[in-house]
Amino acid sequence: MTTDSFVLKGDIVYSLDPQRLSCTEGGYLVCDEGLCAGVFAAGELPGRFADLEVRDFCGQLIIPGLVDLHTHAPQFPNRGLGMDLELLDWLDTYTFPEESRYADLTYARLAYEDFVAELMRGATTRAVVFATLHVPATLLLMELLEDTGLSTLVGKLNMDRNSLPTLVERDALASLDATRQWLNAVAERGFRCTAPILTPRFVPSCSDSLLVGLGALQREFGLPVQSHLSENLAEIAWVRELCPDAASYAEAYLRTGLLGGEGCPTIMAHCVYSDPLETPLLKEQGVWIAHCPVSNTCVSSGIAPVRSYLDQGLRVGLGTDVSGGYSLSLLHSMAEAIKVSKLRWRLVDDGLKPLSVAEAFYLATLGGGSFFGKVGSFEPGFCFDAVVLEDIRRPTDSDLDLEARLERLIYADANDRVLGKYVNGQQIL
Amino acid sequence: MTTDSFVLKGDIVYSLDPQRLSCTEGGYLVCDEGLCAGVFAAGELPGRFADLEVRDFCGQLIIPGLVDLHTHAPQFPNRGLGMDLELLDWLDTYTFPEESRYADLTYARLAYEDFVAELMRGATTRAVVFATLHVPATLLLMELLEDTGLSTLVGKLNMDRNSLPTLVERDALASLDATRQWLNAVAERGFRCTAPILTPRFVPSCSDSLLVGLGALQREFGLPVQSHLSENLAEIAWVRELCPDAASYAEAYLRTGLLGGEGCPTIMAHCVYSDPLETPLLKEQGVWIAHCPVSNTCVSSGIAPVRSYLDQGLRVGLGTDVSGGYSLSLLHSMAEAIKVSKLRWRLVDDGLKPLSVAEAFYLATLGGGSFFGKVGSFEPGFCFDAVVLEDIRRPTDSDLDLEARLERLIYADANDRVLGKYVNGQQIL
Repeated sequence: MTTDSFVLKGDIVYSLDPQRLSCTEGGYLVCDEGLCAGVFAAGELPGRFADLEVRDFCGQLIIPGLVDLHTHAPQFPNRGLGMDLELLDWLDTYTFPEESRYADLTYARLAYEDFVAELMRGATTRAVVFATLHVPATLLLMELLEDTGLSTLVGKLNMDRNSLPTLVERDALASLDATRQWLNAVAERGFRCTAPILTPRFVPSCSDSLLVGLGALQREFGLPVQSHLSENLAEIAWVRELCPDAASYAEAYLRTGLLGGEGCPTIMAHCVYSDPLETPLLKEQGVWIAHCPVSNTCVSSGIAPVRSYLDQGLRVGLGTDVSGGYSLSLLHSMAEAIKVSKLRWRLVDDGLKPLSVAEAFYLATLGGGSFFGKVGSFEPGFCFDAVVLEDIRRPTDSDLDLEARLERLIYADANDRVLGKYVNGQQIL
Repeated sequence: MTTDSFVLKGDIVYSLDPQRLSCTEGGYLVCDEGLCAGVFAAGELPGRFADLEVRDFCGQLIIPGLVDLHTHAPQFPNRGLGMDLELLDWLDTYTFPEESRYADLTYARLAYEDFVAELMRGATTRAVVFATLHVPATLLLMELLEDTGLSTLVGKLNMDRNSLPTLVERDALASLDATRQWLNAVAERGFRCTAPILTPRFVPSCSDSLLVGLGALQREFGLPVQSHLSENLAEIAWVRELCPDAASYAEAYLRTGLLGGEGCPTIMAHCVYSDPLETPLLKEQGVWIAHCPVSNTCVSSGIAPVRSYLDQGLRVGLGTDVSGGYSLSLLHSMAEAIKVSKLRWRLVDDGLKPLSVAEAFYLATLGGGSFFGKVGSFEPGFCFDAVVLEDIRRPTDSDLDLEARLERLIYADANDRVLGKYVNGQQIL
């Protein structure tokens, strides 16, 4: 598992922009000391790479590693269970009780090992992960992730109100102290591919003084931030009650310095109902929206207008949002993003045409990858994150082009067809 | 593969009605000469069954075999491909060209063997299948299905207008003659578990005289009928043009004797937009609605108001509708039925609450099964159709009840976890 220089040979697909795919059959993808050196057609591999080892995946697809911008590791035991409630009741009934269990490190190890194994076996190479409010369990999760070679950002949660007695921090000060303690412990461990991200759960879980304190902590440590935004109508109405002087839900984060801007890269999950007051803030502040179509359907939130966000030039990636979502597969999330965009076009607004395969693929690669820097593309200079997918073959196949083969792998949810996985040029699977 | 009497032991779930599941952990399911003799709790197996062989599936789920009320075998090569168009364009661009290929029996064999193998390996025990208009290929499909032991109804299509030159019958007479020829050939073969079903493709593909002729054929042979109804807005508008004197789309079938009633069991696929003029006809005529949530999403048709149909006492089952749908898995269709019902509740009509797990399960078992007679339940006297599903186990599991375990299998799309499959008491897998 050392950084290396080598060449992958196969049928290579990556996004040039949201609408356009680069497709090269039988091409060469060059890794030069952990960075992409480009994609070359057969016979066009530059001489300077001629001596590199070629790993031949003839007839298989090679795509950028997939990036999960939003998921909850401690909810993994609940996935596919308790899908009968809307967001706020679902949190109280299923999610908060489950997260309470992570006070117990023995349980946390069982659950997190299971989560990490599942994340490893699929096509995801990078993920931004909610843990729980518990410092020891969060450190354990980070250690387990570090051992995999996946590149992840992990957040100890902050929550000091409106939760179960078993899952709430005493007050803002206690939450901030625990966060400092966690950050210090992370720094001591010297992780290579695992980093902390500030994680106020969402406005209803965080008192004003906690948000203010986290804003100060963000500036002190220069940390990235993740939270939830405008997911569900009842949640939004509640935030309006809790923050009567904020013009929008987003402003409740902005005014404490937790909504993007210079030195504060921020992911806001969902944005199902971000309105014309909110979207300009997201754009100005350069916030990444984590679109979570499976979860938004399963907890009956609705369908985010992703087409509109892309048209407005907002940053958008995909999140699996387990266990509002029931699967860690981003290939499944791509299919779901397309599907719900069709229903939104049909049922809500036929001015917003459905997402294409190229657009869904962009969201899961370059769209979300950009949160990590130069990630999610095979253009020269990008981090070498790649996944080899075993292609589907049917006896009836004739001349399917590469985009069609990608489409079929997406709808077949080919997350279990990973033949190889590389992060920063290191083979991790 | 002979009919037998035996007992399956395991965790048994079946529908009592749309809302209620019968759940028996560690129970005994008795097969008595191909029929269900009931489910018995541990220690309560009646003495008269004491000598039967017990097949122990300890800790696994045993459910009624799943019933697919609507799918297109010849579209199987296209599944997961060409998902970028709405219904009518999708038919012209992808579907009709593919179906044209079944004039070639060599191609048909390749494709149908692939379809049948996929249908066999999953949890489906009965299916109602569209073939193409080609008689030899349809007979081949029926022979292949017959060899599996699955119980199926298969339709040679009728279509004499509005199609490609490569996929249309010369006129009504030619279509009716071919149908007679097909029915005679089927009768000669003496199939045991494969039967014909009259299959006018849909009103736009069938001239008035063809529909009239098929109505006469239906009465002559007493055949069941399947077609499409009120799937997509553009299709519905077209039918209104084609049949200006029919008060509803359904009436265009009814007036030719192809819409249910005594001696004419009928499945209509989709009914996404059946209105208050149409639904009373469906009820009076006892028509089965094949709800196809995956396909209705993927070809951007919309979301059928299944809750309303159930409340009105209409007959509803599930269809996978490959290749408008991309999967032959009815477990996946169950999850999708629940998911789209949530989006419909949220976006269209919050008077129609989302479907529950029990309701989705009912649709795929007893709801669709009733089209085959006493099928889809483990009540005494029902055909012994059963599937054993390998349960999911996570290291974090504690005391999940049987309904929760079923829910998780549905969301995990456990179609590849089939440990055993029985139809009419015969083990076929």
